[in-house]
Amino acid sequence: MNHILDWRAHAGSAAEKFYKTTLWQGEHVMVGLNCLEPNQTQGLHSHQGADKLYFVLEGEGKFTIGNEERTAIAGALVVAPAGIAHGVTNMSGARLSLLVAIAPGPK
Amino acid sequence: MNHILDWRAHAGSAAEKFYKTTLWQGEHVMVGLNCLEPNQTQGLHSHQGADKLYFVLEGEGKFTIGNEERTAIAGALVVAPAGIAHGVTNMSGARLSLLVAIAPGPK
Repeated sequence: MNHILDWRAHAGSAAEKFYKTTLWQGEHVMVGLNCLEPNQTQGLHSHQGADKLYFVLEGEGKFTIGNEERTAIAGALVVAPAGIAHGVTNMSGARLSLLVAIAPGPK
Repeated sequence: MNHILDWRAHAGSAAEKFYKTTLWQGEHVMVGLNCLEPNQTQGLHSHQGADKLYFVLEGEGKFTIGNEERTAIAGALVVAPAGIAHGVTNMSGARLSLLVAIAPGPK
């Protein structure tokens, strides 16, 4: 298995909803890449028993984490603790790419 | 608790060993920032029962993951599955900054 990979080689777009792909699935964590084109949204949802991390790779997104709503740009770490509702919308004119990790990952 | 933060506000250096700080500690994952100045090393070690992720934020590092040894630059995701020995050395002339996540985090 390859233990080193570059997210840029895995980016993409999806006309419906948004683009998502798994980069690595371990026993204790799943790592993926989400790409949202302008106006695409990941609706509010929560993971019971799993913490979620987003790291903004490019672009900017309007994140909701529980009662917080804030815009985050490349370089931001956004955390959604287990059970807390979270979502993100790309209100900019360029692609929003997010490294995401869910621990533990879905079985 | 703040759920959105920028790694650049947390970067630093340490003359001995390397700089490390915790960015977020959840129930299922710990997220931190490691900064290695030129010639600094994180020696080979492993985490029993926990997967480790590195994301290269800036600079370049020579990573060892099990039997693999490879240089990775900004944009690379490096994964060390639970129990697999891993480490990194900064052989470049500039700072190497790494977002790290350990799932589950140390209790």
